[in-house]
Amino acid sequence: MGSLISIVGAGPGDPELLTIKALKRIQDADCILHDALVSDEIMNLAKPDAQRIYVGKLYQDGQDQTDRQEWINQLIIELAGKGQKVVRLKSGDPMIFGRGAEEIRFCIENSLNYEVIPGVTSALGAASLYGIPLTERGKNSMVLFGTGHYCEGDFCDLETFVSVLKSGSPIIFFMGLNKLVRLAQRLMDQAISPEIKVQILSKVSQPDSVAFEGTLGNIAQILETEKPPMPALVIIGKNVERLSK
Amino acid sequence: MGSLISIVGAGPGDPELLTIKALKRIQDADCILHDALVSDEIMNLAKPDAQRIYVGKLYQDGQDQTDRQEWINQLIIELAGKGQKVVRLKSGDPMIFGRGAEEIRFCIENSLNYEVIPGVTSALGAASLYGIPLTERGKNSMVLFGTGHYCEGDFCDLETFVSVLKSGSPIIFFMGLNKLVRLAQRLMDQAISPEIKVQILSKVSQPDSVAFEGTLGNIAQILETEKPPMPALVIIGKNVERLSK
Repeated sequence: MGSLISIVGAGPGDPELLTIKALKRIQDADCILHDALVSDEIMNLAKPDAQRIYVGKLYQDGQDQTDRQEWINQLIIELAGKGQKVVRLKSGDPMIFGRGAEEIRFCIENSLNYEVIPGVTSALGAASLYGIPLTERGKNSMVLFGTGHYCEGDFCDLETFVSVLKSGSPIIFFMGLNKLVRLAQRLMDQAISPEIKVQILSKVSQPDSVAFEGTLGNIAQILETEKPPMPALVIIGKNVERLSK
Repeated sequence: MGSLISIVGAGPGDPELLTIKALKRIQDADCILHDALVSDEIMNLAKPDAQRIYVGKLYQDGQDQTDRQEWINQLIIELAGKGQKVVRLKSGDPMIFGRGAEEIRFCIENSLNYEVIPGVTSALGAASLYGIPLTERGKNSMVLFGTGHYCEGDFCDLETFVSVLKSGSPIIFFMGLNKLVRLAQRLMDQAISPEIKVQILSKVSQPDSVAFEGTLGNIAQILETEKPPMPALVIIGKNVERLSK
């Protein structure tokens, strides 16, 4: 057993969207290992003397991701060995593109006393805060969460993306906006209509949150003129309007 | 403007998995319209004199769903007209198969002062609490959330389900367990391996939460012998093991 390692979802950014359990763990932590996207307001909820260690990834910082994870793992082992209450704080939810499974495996392999606390994923935060229908009676009954990884020079999951969009259901992409123009083009190449809507949601739930709306056909132009700030989510689908303005 | 209507996600059941914002709205509400799946512990966070109105659906209660939504809408209008602070409390997240979009449309059409507060969806709660990998580096980079609706006598989205499972990614089903045997059979008919794993997670995050594991090939037998309690989620995929025991 030993000291508790809490792998915690911090939600999309607004401190009020933390869960009560996450807040308790942050307030009680001796050390917090946090990502780039965890807001200062959330970090300020920790005890003044809690150690704060930034372990996040910066876009194109050149650091090897496997090395980074090894370093985080070593920190966790060392801090746990000192009897510290450690919070591994991740933006959104730990299990939705958050490497939660990898960190759970590490804790199990090293017989660490761990827990995982889910969070509000930014995608669902965006859907609620901007009123974006992900499913609606009589229209569609599924939603895909994807990243947009490449395999052999193309999007690994392009065929599935096409299947989802053709059915009328939306896809929420957790990916860099730098891939979006290529994705839009590849979808149109597969006979997805250029009229399909694209929502870009930047800095969801934060005070300077901002949203952009386009279509597959004009999103390249919108990206160029509007330059949506990061982090940003992309929702693509026939019915994904913003009901709340 | 007028009194505030808060459409609130209550999370999977554990009161500690409420967001701080949801807790504040529940504690401050004059009236709470709540679903069947919202736990007593959560309802007990309301003021003693707050009005509690059960508006949920019971399995096969015979009530027409459109009539029920009309009735909820009328209640909201009446309560808002009296200047009451109304919380429409939904289990999980309002926008993931929660009819959030319909209620937003209603609020907009009736010029009501509303907000939507996201919650921890039970699917992500289950992934964290049972340590179920939904995505993992080098394995898969998407996850589908689906219901398993019927169109013309078969699952509307069967083709997409097959595409996702063939890619190695999982599907999280929000559906009655009574459809699961048929779904497993239809997937196997489409050349999905009977060895693909099936996780059934009952009463996620609640004290009597329980999980069952099987495969497409043996899930009918497991359902018959184990009779998983409701509400239950189903996660199907090649890599969906339970890491946390």
